[in-house]
Amino acid sequence: MNVRIKWLRNQFNSLNIDGMIVSNPVNVRYLTGLSEEGFLILAPKENIFVTDSRYIESVNRKLTIDDEIIAYNVKDLSKYDYEAIFMTNENVGFEENYVTYEKYKNLLQTYQVNFVETENLIENQRIVKDEEEIQNIRKACEITDNAFNYIINNISEGMTEKEVAFEIEKHMLLNGADGIAFDFIVAFGENTSMPHYVPSDRKVKKGDIIQFDIGCKYNGYCSDFSRVVFVEEMYDKYKEVYDFVLEEQKKTSSALKLGANVKTVIKDRETDFKLKNYDVLHAFGHGVGLDIHETPVLRSNKDYILKENTVIAIEPGVYFSGKFGIRIEDTFLVTRNEAISLTKSSKDYTIIKLK
Amino acid sequence: MNVRIKWLRNQFNSLNIDGMIVSNPVNVRYLTGLSEEGFLILAPKENIFVTDSRYIESVNRKLTIDDEIIAYNVKDLSKYDYEAIFMTNENVGFEENYVTYEKYKNLLQTYQVNFVETENLIENQRIVKDEEEIQNIRKACEITDNAFNYIINNISEGMTEKEVAFEIEKHMLLNGADGIAFDFIVAFGENTSMPHYVPSDRKVKKGDIIQFDIGCKYNGYCSDFSRVVFVEEMYDKYKEVYDFVLEEQKKTSSALKLGANVKTVIKDRETDFKLKNYDVLHAFGHGVGLDIHETPVLRSNKDYILKENTVIAIEPGVYFSGKFGIRIEDTFLVTRNEAISLTKSSKDYTIIKLK
Repeated sequence: MNVRIKWLRNQFNSLNIDGMIVSNPVNVRYLTGLSEEGFLILAPKENIFVTDSRYIESVNRKLTIDDEIIAYNVKDLSKYDYEAIFMTNENVGFEENYVTYEKYKNLLQTYQVNFVETENLIENQRIVKDEEEIQNIRKACEITDNAFNYIINNISEGMTEKEVAFEIEKHMLLNGADGIAFDFIVAFGENTSMPHYVPSDRKVKKGDIIQFDIGCKYNGYCSDFSRVVFVEEMYDKYKEVYDFVLEEQKKTSSALKLGANVKTVIKDRETDFKLKNYDVLHAFGHGVGLDIHETPVLRSNKDYILKENTVIAIEPGVYFSGKFGIRIEDTFLVTRNEAISLTKSSKDYTIIKLK
Repeated sequence: MNVRIKWLRNQFNSLNIDGMIVSNPVNVRYLTGLSEEGFLILAPKENIFVTDSRYIESVNRKLTIDDEIIAYNVKDLSKYDYEAIFMTNENVGFEENYVTYEKYKNLLQTYQVNFVETENLIENQRIVKDEEEIQNIRKACEITDNAFNYIINNISEGMTEKEVAFEIEKHMLLNGADGIAFDFIVAFGENTSMPHYVPSDRKVKKGDIIQFDIGCKYNGYCSDFSRVVFVEEMYDKYKEVYDFVLEEQKKTSSALKLGANVKTVIKDRETDFKLKNYDVLHAFGHGVGLDIHETPVLRSNKDYILKENTVIAIEPGVYFSGKFGIRIEDTFLVTRNEAISLTKSSKDYTIIKLK
């Protein structure tokens, strides 16, 4: 049995549960390495992965004797098999933040046990990354840096936001990424004023500011990264905002170290925004891992003490409705002294030439 | 107020509810046209869309007076505002198949009302498409056919499954698709034996069978489409299976007309599979619309009577573990006489030349 499942089983006593049903596929992957559809039952006497005909072959190929996980095809399990997994009235943990209300009612019927909320037990364990997870995130960050470096040297006259987004994705996928971590934002000119913009057929032109917000996955682990660059020339109006955003990111990453409280750090940042009369349109960042958005979210109402080896994206942004916006974002590793950037692209003013 | 929200409000009486909270973003889009994050409250006296700072500007730009929907930024609503939306102990519908158990508990606390299950009320209404929805799906199908026609004429020596998948996506996005409808399957040779394969770096070679399973979105509406083609030559062993799968798809589409019971039709197909000793590894198809997988799923245990203007993907497939597989799939429109294919690509044996 691997260390993660052992760890989870060791929590059962303090939660007063005899077993757990893990339904969230990201948590299943974290615990088992399996990315096939299915769910995991940690029963008193065994670990069971229930999948279906589409995946049973590939699951059985991946599992070894050391995993101590038995895989079943859902169609081979009867009502009585499910009832026999736990004893009647045993306490069984479930994921109340993932399971729908309807599914919860089905669980009650299927297993005839007492279901107990587990309060993001696995998600909270996922916050602190081990060495292998950090390596995966580093690799996702490296692929992202390389794709960014490629694209800013390969935007040609007349390219649209969609085309640019597409070339970035292609570069990532052909250079080792499993997939993209989220739908990219590539915004030209006035479109940068919307923090959650969707790329359009708007063509690039001289004098444009370009906002990128991109990231990929490597072995399931995400990177998250944003930059702005300027096309052929950079107008002075951008400089003050750019410098402010960059300075805010630096202040945040210096402060977000082992033992720091997210609330205090982000409150200070919001004060800076207020002094400038800038609106805070979104959180200052978020945890990154198997999910692109993980705990902790960087908001001034989050009383959260940071742990070492937490990975977080820090992404301050300032937006002027209908005019422009600037967001700078890197994926950081929390250490004893500061948060260290895992994405490495330059944050100097970057003026690109169209090809 | 648009016809869809009017329709929903007209259901309240028979469900014995005074209002409804719509949380599923696809249902919100269906009812309002809004694709921004948020949720919809149909209260006794008004329709409310609650979103956040990231989206409030674009939501307010889209809504007109005729929508009769008031948009709020979540940060401007207090505990008391929520409590004032309904009267204490009113019956309010919620989506028990979308809302998590934890969120359900929060709803109870926030609104102080009796929550009532709505049993996929909106999803069931979405099954039958109106003219505009069918046009959107037709367009998604046309973009898919065109991308398929493009790719089978543009696979070159040494291309990988990933690269081919990528070129299809690019063709779709640059020819009007909003996005892809699901992660594509492009499988070469022996990889076709896995119905839910993920594209790898395997390079194409002469004699390969290639399985495509692709689809895109247009105005939010999906297409779903699968074909196999053969590289430079087609071995005889493939012909019998190809003919069988194609014949099964034809039999299914002829039978799936207004008033047909899915159960009866698919039972007949499964008998054909059994006579040949072929395993049934997945459903014969599924509804298609704003979601790629909608009701009805085409399984022999689904007692479901088809309605006109339902859109379904029909996708029989036969797989030989470790050897090869063949699946043929089109998106169909259910009519009075049969299901008519909206994807139009040829289903003759297709042998492609590498460029």
